[in-house]
Amino acid sequence: MAPKTSMQQVDEFGLINLISRILKKGQRNSKLVLGIGDDAAVFKTSKNMWNVVTVDALVEGIHFDLRYSNFKKLGRKALSSNLSDIAAMGAVPTWALLNLTIPAKITADNITELYRGISEIAKKYQTQVIGGNITRAKSELVICITLLGEVEPRYILKRSSAKVGDIIAVTGDLGGSHAGLSILQNRKRSSVFSYITEKHLNPEPRNEWIRLLLKKGVKINSCIDISDGLSSDLSHICRASKAGAELELAHIPVHPETLRAAQLKKDNILDYVLHGGEEYELLMTLTPKNFKKAKRILGKNITAIGRMTASNMISGIRNNKKTKIEVKGFKHF
Amino acid sequence: MAPKTSMQQVDEFGLINLISRILKKGQRNSKLVLGIGDDAAVFKTSKNMWNVVTVDALVEGIHFDLRYSNFKKLGRKALSSNLSDIAAMGAVPTWALLNLTIPAKITADNITELYRGISEIAKKYQTQVIGGNITRAKSELVICITLLGEVEPRYILKRSSAKVGDIIAVTGDLGGSHAGLSILQNRKRSSVFSYITEKHLNPEPRNEWIRLLLKKGVKINSCIDISDGLSSDLSHICRASKAGAELELAHIPVHPETLRAAQLKKDNILDYVLHGGEEYELLMTLTPKNFKKAKRILGKNITAIGRMTASNMISGIRNNKKTKIEVKGFKHF
Repeated sequence: MAPKTSMQQVDEFGLINLISRILKKGQRNSKLVLGIGDDAAVFKTSKNMWNVVTVDALVEGIHFDLRYSNFKKLGRKALSSNLSDIAAMGAVPTWALLNLTIPAKITADNITELYRGISEIAKKYQTQVIGGNITRAKSELVICITLLGEVEPRYILKRSSAKVGDIIAVTGDLGGSHAGLSILQNRKRSSVFSYITEKHLNPEPRNEWIRLLLKKGVKINSCIDISDGLSSDLSHICRASKAGAELELAHIPVHPETLRAAQLKKDNILDYVLHGGEEYELLMTLTPKNFKKAKRILGKNITAIGRMTASNMISGIRNNKKTKIEVKGFKHF
Repeated sequence: MAPKTSMQQVDEFGLINLISRILKKGQRNSKLVLGIGDDAAVFKTSKNMWNVVTVDALVEGIHFDLRYSNFKKLGRKALSSNLSDIAAMGAVPTWALLNLTIPAKITADNITELYRGISEIAKKYQTQVIGGNITRAKSELVICITLLGEVEPRYILKRSSAKVGDIIAVTGDLGGSHAGLSILQNRKRSSVFSYITEKHLNPEPRNEWIRLLLKKGVKINSCIDISDGLSSDLSHICRASKAGAELELAHIPVHPETLRAAQLKKDNILDYVLHGGEEYELLMTLTPKNFKKAKRILGKNITAIGRMTASNMISGIRNNKKTKIEVKGFKHF
């Protein structure tokens, strides 16, 4: 027998490359605009409007822990993480489908609460749940959501079109979700850390902000949502755009609670902001002129944190010293 | 604390009703044609073409057993079961997205084989895999597929428009998948039961047949794919169409291997054909005139097995004796 390749030897991106090669052997449909490799796939349905579609799953024991989440928040977060992918494409969400894989320990009341959470967020973002599927499982609850959206062709945002010289900007603040998780895992003083624990359990997707920028005429060159961590998601933009990046580390926005949580655990705050996952903030690149316009519109909700460079790496600048930033982030295997 | 409702007390359809009520409180988008409650949801994207979307999952230990399936066939079956839902809507498949939840025991080679199987079927049915997601899991492999398709508005097939007096027709033969499973579980003589074991492990969706009927002008009043079992899926048509049904039990097409497998286990063959799941055959209702037309086109691949009635139940006729058929089938909880 040939030696087996274990999952630990091939990371998620290696596997995706492998899979892409298998799938590319198939024929191509001319209506496809963007396939595997962005936050969502894009296909044409009419001249004036394209459709986007993304799928994402929350797995018990990997993405959530029922000891410190509740089903309503879990439902909210499951849909919000998908909404964030649609936001990263510049699109407006339209339809959602849910696939639940439910072990026996989960009660019908739990599921009802989960759907209440999903329903609340769906309503807020004018999205309708139009289908789904429920199956039994032996061990783990898996919440898999497919989310569709639509986007005017002129508004579509990709990872691959960042330009050297672009400002790198981020919405909200970073490191909060990871900091909130560490507070929840230690289960203490979580009441004085309500901003970051909510940031972890109940993140707000940035759909309204990105559509506001686009409609007010801000030209955004590239965009991704931060789900794996700043360094990892920025590296996707760099790779897709064949460019490098330079971050002004002191400019990265951090909430006071995030800082306090890191101090409490004697962790380096930079690990939280550079490599903490599940931020659901948007990372975008745009010309200095367009960044100024965006800043006038979103105010403190958007911050310039660096610029795209012609190098082939990501570096961080602090106290006039430049160091290479290692790309880390959420490891799926 | 309020008493908890366990999943065993609420079956899948009870739960779907509960969920539908929660979700219906949200606003409705006028582009929606069909939401929760058919094989796929339907929404408008342009005047001449509507889009359909469905999601389905195969869960290890529930839907498949790695002891007698292999990853390539598993990939084929996962996509085929979704193709069958798209066929039941009269639509043509277009785009697929995969969400894999992978425990550590699964190797990268296993996943590559799985994708090879998916890719083969995708190619055959002119469908392109355009996205997906891979996450780690602690215990079970879950293969969740979202499949999109498109359909001319005049061709769309629903569960809800069967008419009293319609012929009930079915493609292929019934009971084979369940019979194949019983052979595989007993792990003997499977080589002389290759038709039914393949029917279980590697079912062929009926997309080509249904599109052929529609294009040749056969008017089909209602359609569903048989995934839970004939009695269960026919009951969905009856409920949605507010009608009853009468089956000519001796007319239901059965493959000789299916019959032999039932005899071997001393099982009642009627249990296999009435309540066996995962058939992936199409169940449709149409006027006698349209059935004749369909028969001329599909020949032995389509069989009349009964008629829609004005009663509120499903009955079976054998030797001129009519008895009520209990609705059973695949129980998800």
